[in-house]
Amino acid sequence: MAKLNSNYDKLAAGYLFPEIARRAKAFASAHPSVKILRMGIGDTTEPLTPTIVKGLHERVDLLANRATYTGYGDSEGELPLREAIAADYATRGSTVNADEIFVSDGAKPDTGNIQTIFSEDAIVAVQDPAYPVYVDTNVIAGRAGNFDASRGLYERIVYMPCNEDNGFFPSVPSGKADIIYLCSPNNPTGNVATREQLTAFVAYARQHRAVILFDAAYRDYIKDPTLPRSIYEIEGARECAIEFYSFSKGAGFTGVRLGWCVIPKTLVLEDGDIGKTHRLWTRRQNTYFNGASNIVQAGALAALTPAGKAECQATIDYYMQNAALIRSTLQDLHIRCFGGDNAPYVWLKTPGNMKSWDFFDKLLSEAHVVGTPGSGFGPSGEGYFRLSSFGHRENIEAALQSVRQNLKL
Amino acid sequence: MAKLNSNYDKLAAGYLFPEIARRAKAFASAHPSVKILRMGIGDTTEPLTPTIVKGLHERVDLLANRATYTGYGDSEGELPLREAIAADYATRGSTVNADEIFVSDGAKPDTGNIQTIFSEDAIVAVQDPAYPVYVDTNVIAGRAGNFDASRGLYERIVYMPCNEDNGFFPSVPSGKADIIYLCSPNNPTGNVATREQLTAFVAYARQHRAVILFDAAYRDYIKDPTLPRSIYEIEGARECAIEFYSFSKGAGFTGVRLGWCVIPKTLVLEDGDIGKTHRLWTRRQNTYFNGASNIVQAGALAALTPAGKAECQATIDYYMQNAALIRSTLQDLHIRCFGGDNAPYVWLKTPGNMKSWDFFDKLLSEAHVVGTPGSGFGPSGEGYFRLSSFGHRENIEAALQSVRQNLKL
Repeated sequence: MAKLNSNYDKLAAGYLFPEIARRAKAFASAHPSVKILRMGIGDTTEPLTPTIVKGLHERVDLLANRATYTGYGDSEGELPLREAIAADYATRGSTVNADEIFVSDGAKPDTGNIQTIFSEDAIVAVQDPAYPVYVDTNVIAGRAGNFDASRGLYERIVYMPCNEDNGFFPSVPSGKADIIYLCSPNNPTGNVATREQLTAFVAYARQHRAVILFDAAYRDYIKDPTLPRSIYEIEGARECAIEFYSFSKGAGFTGVRLGWCVIPKTLVLEDGDIGKTHRLWTRRQNTYFNGASNIVQAGALAALTPAGKAECQATIDYYMQNAALIRSTLQDLHIRCFGGDNAPYVWLKTPGNMKSWDFFDKLLSEAHVVGTPGSGFGPSGEGYFRLSSFGHRENIEAALQSVRQNLKL
Repeated sequence: MAKLNSNYDKLAAGYLFPEIARRAKAFASAHPSVKILRMGIGDTTEPLTPTIVKGLHERVDLLANRATYTGYGDSEGELPLREAIAADYATRGSTVNADEIFVSDGAKPDTGNIQTIFSEDAIVAVQDPAYPVYVDTNVIAGRAGNFDASRGLYERIVYMPCNEDNGFFPSVPSGKADIIYLCSPNNPTGNVATREQLTAFVAYARQHRAVILFDAAYRDYIKDPTLPRSIYEIEGARECAIEFYSFSKGAGFTGVRLGWCVIPKTLVLEDGDIGKTHRLWTRRQNTYFNGASNIVQAGALAALTPAGKAECQATIDYYMQNAALIRSTLQDLHIRCFGGDNAPYVWLKTPGNMKSWDFFDKLLSEAHVVGTPGSGFGPSGEGYFRLSSFGHRENIEAALQSVRQNLKL
């Protein structure tokens, strides 16, 4: 008699974005004449750049030809792409070797799957608020314990609150943590960790032989050159940190799908067996994964050429101009907001200290704008709200115009 | 202090295909002038067909245009593709609804990940020999118990031997099994289950509320119209079976990556909550996966058009002519062989009852041909060997010529 994994029953709610989609759809059904303006999901809207498009077409043509067709690639990714990624790290002075890079179909699968190579009793620490995948995958794996509905948190997860008091970046855990998720630039708060802040976490991880899972999916949005774009810019991180990157936001690959993770061979865990984490992840990927699409890998390789990088930067600049418009609108309305200067997300304090989902409903019903409730990212997100700068300029402007005109403050 | 998942230490050996690659590479290094002839991995060699190539190019162009660019898709896959898959099932009289289909990046990820939605104490049954992913992923999940090296098997796995005596398809388990993996056409034996054989398994599963995980990755190689191409051709299967398909072998997508799985909403497990398995997999995919590449999905949709299907069939016929050549060569050499008539794999009994890896080394050193040792697929594969019909005709002919001339029998 087959039984299902009972840990799924411990998941507190449906995954955030389907729930948002459900409410937006319900509103649209009830108000068919209303045009809904979307600033919710961080979904790219601008086209793939010419260099990337050329790379994709060329690879399709190679696959159309008997002499140049290729089948299975390495599950870790194609070597030229891994070398290009390593070279990209080198431009910032970080040491990441090609054979430490694992190409994947995105940062969501990687940040979701990575916990499977750690022990079931590991203590997990997350920034609060955080991208829901970090917590949810550990709930499913049985590491989170039960959900405490009164406090809105899981009993075995170490929450590291990020709020106005600490500038939206936490201190290192006071107690024990084995696996520490950090995301910078942060989703959802838009905050970027400083070199000093990351240095403190690397010191903690080295001291306690913890592992930092560093999600750098939004690193390309950092404009300030003094802010670290990779954990490996911090000394000692190669002993304690795994890093994730996605081409989703940097190259418009949200639907095209590509990412990578780095597991340094120098990582040291409990038993001092240097390199074991790298070997386990290799085995995991060889067993569960057959590599990212070769067509898509060619597009990513094109994105890392000088021409590709320049084109992608122009798209990023476009989104960041949207972010500036969002910030200035909110400031004009005297709504306190954060982020949006080195990240595509603007994090706002709800007016009148409303609950996040109440503000979601208010914003939708009054201004017809869909955003993302902060509480969907964790208990410390309550009373906050995320606006995304991804969108066509005219749509962002229309949404902001509607907020100015229709939101009752 | 972070610890690693100790179940990885229970894995008996490196994943089969990397080990084959390692030995082939070592031989090549020691004999640099020798050309190695490959009949090992089931890797496609013929180009993508014109209709598929057109579908891929068109989607890339849509993504290059601001008006037609799209970002995140549904993690379950694009609706037109799911509808085309459902329509394809209908042509064979099977009922599979579009919302029961989950598009993925391949059958390996799906058959690897599916076990995560079942309870940790489930008893797993596999055909022996079997595709290694079924067992290995359950070892990593902790369901397999320890490896018994003397018998070459895991203590908690129910092995269902497939050998000459039972025509390479097993009887239903005599004891308890909760999760039953079946692969037809079979990798590695090339055997195809009959309607009667599958009917017996469906009856067992319904009686015991077990679930059948039916891997149909090679279904397009079935020529005999009386053989079932899908478990859903068997009455009652919608209550107890999940099915997997891959475009890898049917459309040459080994490197391009696409597959699907079907979870009927009518599936009934332990607690009689009909639809729960479907909901759990939906949640799993929403949490861990962001959908298959939209470019690749367009290629798959093209593959399912009448023109696409006809072109893919021509490629399949080409590989099956290779299979016929392999069979006739082995028969001329009085080597007993099986499969290869409705499947791309030929399964041979090693001459003189050699051990599989010994025959691997002999075939490599004498004929310079790489094949796949049967024992790599499970204890009942010992003394057998798999040859793959994937390859350019001239390479298959050269390999067979070398076997005829150089293998010392």
